[in-house]
Amino acid sequence: MENIELEHALQIIGEAVNKISSIERINIEEARGRIIGEDIYAPINQPPFNRSPLDGYALRSEDTVGGSKRNPIKLKVVDEVFAGGNISTSVKNNEAIRIMTGAEIPEGADCVIRQENTNYSMKEVEIYSELKKYENYCFVGEDVKKGSKLISTGEKITYVHIGLLAMMGITEVLVKRKPRLGIISTGDEVISPGETLTKGKIYDSNRITISIRLLDFGCEIVSSKIMGDEVYDVSEEIDNLIDKVDAIITTGGVSVGKKDIMHEVIKEINADRLFWRVRMKPGTPAIYSIYKNTPILSLSGNPFAAIATFEIMGKELIYNLSGDEELKEVRIKSVMEDDFLKESKGRRIVRGVYNNNKVYLPQGGHSSGMMSSMLGCNCLIDIKPGTKQLLKGDEVEIILI
Amino acid sequence: MENIELEHALQIIGEAVNKISSIERINIEEARGRIIGEDIYAPINQPPFNRSPLDGYALRSEDTVGGSKRNPIKLKVVDEVFAGGNISTSVKNNEAIRIMTGAEIPEGADCVIRQENTNYSMKEVEIYSELKKYENYCFVGEDVKKGSKLISTGEKITYVHIGLLAMMGITEVLVKRKPRLGIISTGDEVISPGETLTKGKIYDSNRITISIRLLDFGCEIVSSKIMGDEVYDVSEEIDNLIDKVDAIITTGGVSVGKKDIMHEVIKEINADRLFWRVRMKPGTPAIYSIYKNTPILSLSGNPFAAIATFEIMGKELIYNLSGDEELKEVRIKSVMEDDFLKESKGRRIVRGVYNNNKVYLPQGGHSSGMMSSMLGCNCLIDIKPGTKQLLKGDEVEIILI
Repeated sequence: MENIELEHALQIIGEAVNKISSIERINIEEARGRIIGEDIYAPINQPPFNRSPLDGYALRSEDTVGGSKRNPIKLKVVDEVFAGGNISTSVKNNEAIRIMTGAEIPEGADCVIRQENTNYSMKEVEIYSELKKYENYCFVGEDVKKGSKLISTGEKITYVHIGLLAMMGITEVLVKRKPRLGIISTGDEVISPGETLTKGKIYDSNRITISIRLLDFGCEIVSSKIMGDEVYDVSEEIDNLIDKVDAIITTGGVSVGKKDIMHEVIKEINADRLFWRVRMKPGTPAIYSIYKNTPILSLSGNPFAAIATFEIMGKELIYNLSGDEELKEVRIKSVMEDDFLKESKGRRIVRGVYNNNKVYLPQGGHSSGMMSSMLGCNCLIDIKPGTKQLLKGDEVEIILI
Repeated sequence: MENIELEHALQIIGEAVNKISSIERINIEEARGRIIGEDIYAPINQPPFNRSPLDGYALRSEDTVGGSKRNPIKLKVVDEVFAGGNISTSVKNNEAIRIMTGAEIPEGADCVIRQENTNYSMKEVEIYSELKKYENYCFVGEDVKKGSKLISTGEKITYVHIGLLAMMGITEVLVKRKPRLGIISTGDEVISPGETLTKGKIYDSNRITISIRLLDFGCEIVSSKIMGDEVYDVSEEIDNLIDKVDAIITTGGVSVGKKDIMHEVIKEINADRLFWRVRMKPGTPAIYSIYKNTPILSLSGNPFAAIATFEIMGKELIYNLSGDEELKEVRIKSVMEDDFLKESKGRRIVRGVYNNNKVYLPQGGHSSGMMSSMLGCNCLIDIKPGTKQLLKGDEVEIILI
């Protein structure tokens, strides 16, 4: 199988994925970060009635003509209405109704005078200014018109969406089911944090790094396991998982060594291998296969290789499952602020810190087995094949993570 | 009490807050998004041993001098080691040990030849190239040195932190306790979504908008209630809450109307009012008071006023409680891409969409009672007092939200 370009790999990943269509009804208070599964039309007007935006007096604008501090116009105060109150009195000529912010503007009134422009009287109020028709008057439905489209399928729900749904009196919404993921970290050398570190062993980080990142991406982790290098065990685990998940991510065992078992595993379960090897470093030997209509993305076990390929290929996979637009790859041009002197014969992905339109390199090593210098990084620098070296001031393309 | 500048208000908010110092021990798998409460030093080296980065043969570089495809050097293969394996055999002159990626490099060997540069033999391996000392050789501790500082108190824990902790064999960490918040939405007109909308009433949105946003900010919501305009009830609720929370946010009742009860509430509980009224629109009548050493931030009940003031003042309050650097206000200069023709006699905060270094205005109304046009907005435009109008191309300062 020939090495393919990263762009081709991403295309294959996307094409082989079925976007999640099943939906579930949940309380709006649980809906933060979910993808909405229905178009929402306003069930009511907002405000639900003509509303006063301030404290003052509701009256008829024609009655205020010529009113000023020197020549106040006097109107009879016939009633009083508070926010949340219920009034049936209407305003007739030469009358006013005392009104508070948020209260319904009574029938007959076409404006509200701010109380500071009156003498605050509850009997006969003095009007010190002229008002225009509909001055200080919030119309029913001016924020949201009943029947108008509020939210569209596929939008990611934020606190503003939830507040708006509440304002409409809506308590439940349909959302897309979360992508369900299974994770398998392979390798006889890998043991769980908490176990005793014996000779030749290392603690696993890929399983948890990817699990936690999948939570950032809005996924549900159905299972995540550390397994050895036994073809049968890994095959059985995939068989157990495959009907319960939308995708499986594995790490380790993808290269060409004697213990690179994923090739055997794919044969054993009779999965359809769509690609093996992508023209990028690190993470070249990534494999993508389909088993029972479900994708399996198998990444290199080197920690940085696993992170970098997961941030690019894994994220693309989840984006295609969930449709969350925030997971769409963001590539931008930027400028190097540090030198990267290593030659890149092939395409190379290097971790970086993007700040104020410049790209910095983190302290520490860049090799694919090194993880610590990833702390604080927020981008991957995509270095073109045949680049002798990158110098301060050189333009580069970066992927924001 | 005199209106104060927003910057002064933010300073008062910060000064009156005690940063949370209590810590709790949690599993690393639960630590995503938390603020770390201890400096972490590496308990082990990473890698824990000298490690082979590829599949090949471990050998002594001096034995490869002059080796090439034409003149292969032959070495006796004396053993084989896999990742996770345990080997006691050492490499002597004219010997090699078959080695797989991730395995410990045996004693005596000072480099690893890539298997593609050999004949893959398990008996007598032919060496087709010269190697330098420490070529393809990952040193113990080259990623993380035992005893070195890995993570500092106050960092926000990401998937990279968690992966790195796992790699160190660490399963639990100390984290800062989450800020505990209480929310009270006041107003006789306010009813809960799900109730029947009767004349003069509106559905509450502030309670849930602020609650959900507080979750974005990493807080725990101890209580959030919709209450009427009874001074006694609201005072009692504050009294109930005050010992259980780090701060209380209230909405509504802060202006100068007859039902603006928060002034009475503050008197009733004998809280210390630090400011009332900030020179900005919307949200001018915000109140900040301290009761039993705990801050109460009381915001206007108009939905956009509540959001805008919460995004500025509420976020500053939480930032000062948690120390989460991501909550620090980010102000940048940008350029208007739309016109905002309304005059701003005083300082005005307007919602906007920041994209590609330009600021757009959302469709829909901008008044403080209007919420729907907030959907999709990601910044607040901070318009200077005395601005006649903002035109396309004008420079503005924005606050990213």
